[in-house]
Amino acid sequence: MNKPISQMTREELAFEYSELLAEYEQVKAEALSLDMSRGKPSTEQLDLSDGILTVLKTGDDCLNSYGTDMRNYGMPIGVPAARGLFAELCGVEFDNVFLGGNASLELMFDAVARAELFGVLPGMTPWCKLDKVKFLCPAPGYDRHFRICETFGIEMINIEMREDGPDMDTIEKLVAEDESIKGIWCVPKHSNPTGTIYSDEVVRRFAALKPAAKDFRVFWDNAYMVHDLYDDVPDILNIFDLTQGTENEDLVYMFTSTSKITYAGSGISAFITSDRNMEHALKYIGTQIISYDKLNQFRHAIFFKDADGIRAHMKKHAEILRPRFEAVISAFERELEGRDMATWTKPTGGYFISLDMKCGSAKRVYELCLAAGMKLTEAGATFPYGKDPKDSNLRIAPSYPPLRELRKAAQVLCLCVKLASVEKALTNALSAL
Amino acid sequence: MNKPISQMTREELAFEYSELLAEYEQVKAEALSLDMSRGKPSTEQLDLSDGILTVLKTGDDCLNSYGTDMRNYGMPIGVPAARGLFAELCGVEFDNVFLGGNASLELMFDAVARAELFGVLPGMTPWCKLDKVKFLCPAPGYDRHFRICETFGIEMINIEMREDGPDMDTIEKLVAEDESIKGIWCVPKHSNPTGTIYSDEVVRRFAALKPAAKDFRVFWDNAYMVHDLYDDVPDILNIFDLTQGTENEDLVYMFTSTSKITYAGSGISAFITSDRNMEHALKYIGTQIISYDKLNQFRHAIFFKDADGIRAHMKKHAEILRPRFEAVISAFERELEGRDMATWTKPTGGYFISLDMKCGSAKRVYELCLAAGMKLTEAGATFPYGKDPKDSNLRIAPSYPPLRELRKAAQVLCLCVKLASVEKALTNALSAL
Repeated sequence: MNKPISQMTREELAFEYSELLAEYEQVKAEALSLDMSRGKPSTEQLDLSDGILTVLKTGDDCLNSYGTDMRNYGMPIGVPAARGLFAELCGVEFDNVFLGGNASLELMFDAVARAELFGVLPGMTPWCKLDKVKFLCPAPGYDRHFRICETFGIEMINIEMREDGPDMDTIEKLVAEDESIKGIWCVPKHSNPTGTIYSDEVVRRFAALKPAAKDFRVFWDNAYMVHDLYDDVPDILNIFDLTQGTENEDLVYMFTSTSKITYAGSGISAFITSDRNMEHALKYIGTQIISYDKLNQFRHAIFFKDADGIRAHMKKHAEILRPRFEAVISAFERELEGRDMATWTKPTGGYFISLDMKCGSAKRVYELCLAAGMKLTEAGATFPYGKDPKDSNLRIAPSYPPLRELRKAAQVLCLCVKLASVEKALTNALSAL
Repeated sequence: MNKPISQMTREELAFEYSELLAEYEQVKAEALSLDMSRGKPSTEQLDLSDGILTVLKTGDDCLNSYGTDMRNYGMPIGVPAARGLFAELCGVEFDNVFLGGNASLELMFDAVARAELFGVLPGMTPWCKLDKVKFLCPAPGYDRHFRICETFGIEMINIEMREDGPDMDTIEKLVAEDESIKGIWCVPKHSNPTGTIYSDEVVRRFAALKPAAKDFRVFWDNAYMVHDLYDDVPDILNIFDLTQGTENEDLVYMFTSTSKITYAGSGISAFITSDRNMEHALKYIGTQIISYDKLNQFRHAIFFKDADGIRAHMKKHAEILRPRFEAVISAFERELEGRDMATWTKPTGGYFISLDMKCGSAKRVYELCLAAGMKLTEAGATFPYGKDPKDSNLRIAPSYPPLRELRKAAQVLCLCVKLASVEKALTNALSAL
């Protein structure tokens, strides 16, 4: 049965529905326990970094090349060798790199919290004193970005994601008009969940934005900057090069981390921004911390040596991740191609595949999967307030399950997609009687 | 010359002044570089924990007893084994322990930031919406506590520190009268910098406070809870036992860390509070982080095994610290006893000795020391706004310098104390002419 669903008769729909139901009951009887809900690295991937556990074995190992003891207090901005590593990797100046703890999420939350409490630069109004603060949210996007906005009561405005990045026409128009728009969330490379790589034009337009709000900031979450699945994946333009020396020099807050380079539970993170933004942020960070964990920063610097060390390491991740992505996509192609039921992305990196249900029944697919023993990211999670206006998007995370389980999971997912699609089409056909 | 300065004639003062000046010039000529400014552990102390560097050597070592991989995402509240370690050490329930990153300072800053942004419990007004927020500050106290208040624009009210803790009469009166008083900073054991151990009565009176503000919180920074220099140091009462089941159950935020147990630059920290406070905090912390560094939490749990493991470890710290404290105090006794120039504390633990200048010239002593090549904590730093109303207090940190240097440093310090005292007395004598 490979017909597009739109061309099927009521009888054909009813027949396929009964077949799918039977198949679904069989799957349920298997009492599976599958999880494609979060972008967690697999055990094989974590094992790649185990050398980092023993790069510092003795107290002497903890002295840097200037003899400074990384075990003791000091260095609020971070360990120089590790700052240098990020500066090289990101193509920015050493002075513009601040190192955090084990997750860039905290650095993002704290950047919003500082803006709320103290304003983004000296003399600027703290956002908590304003009646209304809004953020633009390219969607589908990262649920934890949206949750930060929700936590702070920041109103979120959906922006359509396109093949080359978010809808820049709308963004340019909105930020120019509305002074209460103070930020936008971007994952410029291998976007979560669509895998989109922002085109050069999109990055250039970001760098040249003319926001009405002087305290508007682009939250540039470069989480997947070196997370390519293939060798020939293009890099995005360096937004700092583009804003350098322009009136937008303070426009960008960039974040990145090694959560998906070394360990999700024990990496290091970086906040990269202009001199002025950094100076202002450090006034508050200097009250908040004495330093983040310097030994872990130092471990990373020694383990990787330089940016090439990280790039070589990421090729090993790609070897593990590529077959997983391809297994899911080939299941989609085999089971869903030509059925007019769903579309999906074919990412060249990152951690997710984005699946769009044509019939607007992502929630139903999520529930069917759950009842069959498979956890997906909750339908709606990829949109602000958890509300997908078309109820169409599902985020598929293929990284964690072993390949054999993943093949089974993809099969169950395709079955649920077909079941929900046929169910909907049949309902429509019957209600048209 | 061992006369109390108050009994010296103008001639005696002039003679001693000229002698001290000559001695001071000699010291200056030595071009020393000494530092007693911060409570940094010495290298010997850091070396005590180097076993922790290699407790996790392989990926398998990173699985806990339930097979959960500490290298991956999850466990926002912290690694269970490490939570259990703090629960045992602090005499609290496992569920009331949250684990942070490498420093409790961040947990304190974030607790204030959450109160400012979101209020301390559901339905309570965020402090940033109030016209005025005040904190009580037992002083001399910890400069970084005061800096948090200053950063948030919280008005600080000095509270006198006494032998058995802060002046409870004044605290009880103020919190009962003034609803804008929202917090108090306490270091209940081996207070920074006086070394005070809060008496049972003081802890009981804290537990029984009747603040007008329902969102008043006691910030109980138990930084030195196991940091005794001697075997027979009394413990403070467990304030959670005292508030349990009373209307003050949500009164206390306790903080502690291993910054001065393992590594100042790479320890772990804990936030301990009631079920209600914890539930409220976790709503926001759950947006801010996925978890703090779990490998480092796990390392600590394995390295120490249990609270007795920590206590045994702290005896080794005491062996290193005790001679340092005693060297400074014996210099004070030798040089300053009977001179009526200064008083000093004789702490039984913690990291500081508090020195009070009778003549109100702490700043002058600080400057004299600095010019002679010795850094002290800046005069005034131990008081809110950096303003010591009597200009009398100096915080002496004897932990970091090697013993030989420390002896020299103590000698220089005593010289500067004498010089400033005689200078002041002579000035007074001359101006009385």
